[in-house]
Amino acid sequence: MSILITGGAGFIGVNLAKRFVTENKRVYLLDNLCRGSLKNIYRLSLQGAVEVIQVDLHNYNKSLSAISQIDRNEEITEVWHLAANSDIPAGTNDSEIDLRDTFMTTYNIIRIMRILDIKFFAFASTSAVYGDRGNESLVETLGPLLPISNYGAMKLASEAFISAAVESFLDTALIFRFPNVIGMPGTHGVIYDFIGKLKESRSYLEVLGDGTQQKSYLHVSDLIDAMLHVRDLNYSGVNVFNVGPNDEGITVKGIAEEVVRQLCPDARIVYGNGNKGWVGDVPKFRYNNDKLRATGWSPSMSSEEAVRLAVGELLRTS
Amino acid sequence: MSILITGGAGFIGVNLAKRFVTENKRVYLLDNLCRGSLKNIYRLSLQGAVEVIQVDLHNYNKSLSAISQIDRNEEITEVWHLAANSDIPAGTNDSEIDLRDTFMTTYNIIRIMRILDIKFFAFASTSAVYGDRGNESLVETLGPLLPISNYGAMKLASEAFISAAVESFLDTALIFRFPNVIGMPGTHGVIYDFIGKLKESRSYLEVLGDGTQQKSYLHVSDLIDAMLHVRDLNYSGVNVFNVGPNDEGITVKGIAEEVVRQLCPDARIVYGNGNKGWVGDVPKFRYNNDKLRATGWSPSMSSEEAVRLAVGELLRTS
Repeated sequence: MSILITGGAGFIGVNLAKRFVTENKRVYLLDNLCRGSLKNIYRLSLQGAVEVIQVDLHNYNKSLSAISQIDRNEEITEVWHLAANSDIPAGTNDSEIDLRDTFMTTYNIIRIMRILDIKFFAFASTSAVYGDRGNESLVETLGPLLPISNYGAMKLASEAFISAAVESFLDTALIFRFPNVIGMPGTHGVIYDFIGKLKESRSYLEVLGDGTQQKSYLHVSDLIDAMLHVRDLNYSGVNVFNVGPNDEGITVKGIAEEVVRQLCPDARIVYGNGNKGWVGDVPKFRYNNDKLRATGWSPSMSSEEAVRLAVGELLRTS
Repeated sequence: MSILITGGAGFIGVNLAKRFVTENKRVYLLDNLCRGSLKNIYRLSLQGAVEVIQVDLHNYNKSLSAISQIDRNEEITEVWHLAANSDIPAGTNDSEIDLRDTFMTTYNIIRIMRILDIKFFAFASTSAVYGDRGNESLVETLGPLLPISNYGAMKLASEAFISAAVESFLDTALIFRFPNVIGMPGTHGVIYDFIGKLKESRSYLEVLGDGTQQKSYLHVSDLIDAMLHVRDLNYSGVNVFNVGPNDEGITVKGIAEEVVRQLCPDARIVYGNGNKGWVGDVPKFRYNNDKLRATGWSPSMSSEEAVRLAVGELLRTS
């Protein structure tokens, strides 16, 4: 019995794999190694403990063949589907990216699971499915779902197809709507960008917007905790959970100040205009995690603490 | 200035086209003529008044070329996108059908509109996006959306992609969530099936389930009224409306009795077991049209009246 993680060589995939390895699970990581990389596997000392299969999940036939081969040797009992485009602006400029990497990867893995009769599916969805609701609290019972990016759209499209699959063959689908997730080995995002910029300029940090953007940040260790907590509740059917911190997030200004504090305390911060980074960016959201907390889980860090830890981790390794 | 209706030779498409023709609009019907047919155009005496372009919208290049050609001669200002798979059980057995005919048609028409800079989009969505909520009233603010058929999933996927398109280039998207729509020239559905069966057996009508399934039915004339009413409100942005009657629907038993009454009053009705016709069928739903009614529109018929009228229409022409 083994576990398959798609996008398994990515930032969240390797952290999840590490936890499964400590549970003595046999873990297979499927990845096209475009954004995910073997370096992530070395960084988390996973080499030898997991098997990496390089295949692009948007290629149905190759993926079916690769996954069937694993399943013949060691029955796959769970699929954790994390493979997706993670560059939201790129997907907004060219919808083909999110169609191929975010939706068709979900579509294909579900079809393959149906053929191989694999019944447990966990999915990395996103707060972006809610769209821009301003100050409204984002709770799972909220509708209609009107994403403003192709990334959010293709994640919602994936949720929809997963839901229908539960009716026809899946026993369990866990849909986790992630906020911004930070930690190591992160490869993109605002903390990463700020550190890169400040390392170059040293004396000042240029922020694109006015710094008032406010979002929920979760450290990857809390995210993995939450997902495994829900897995252990042995739900059947389709289950949707927001995963997030117990607060209303942290502003871009707060993040910029933390990066400056830890890296170049004397640097000035120079702000731009507006509170939207790019088309499809949700400038502010209040994320509600009541449903998850009602199951007995609570995050160990606030958005601010998660940012502080992630900045430190990133500075030590970059 | 002209209007493009995709799936325009289908049941709802020709009814919509007819109304646009009475408004003296120039109307183009795009259709692959698989389920839609030229016969529908003859039946509604639309020949000469509309132009039919036979192209399959899941073929992006051919569709782009065909629609660009129209747009060069007469600017297309509105797209009404009705093209979709309408055979729900077929799509549940083979997800490729709904992917291709329901989702990729939406994906392609949106991409084409972006290239041609067409800013108004109306979409035929469905009550199936809500999934099976039992006795809960289906209102637009309900979430999470957990469809139980691939048909519902690919309609929801379409809504998601449309919503993101409003952020990047569309001025207006009207998303109409249809209930069961009946009338002429209908080609499938429970009324059609019952009439076909009863015409063969004459003395009895066999019903698959126990007859307790209860759904909202809307006559196509009311549906078109509702959509044009909303169009005339000149909304911008993305707008989602349930379109349905002012009641809790009619049971399959009620429909069977109406067909028997009008066709063979002495026939017996023989019921089967269970209240689910097939995987992906929602056995019962209570459809809430408060949002639409608050804009000043109200249906002219109840579910029962719509069924009575549609049975009569179908009997007169079949």
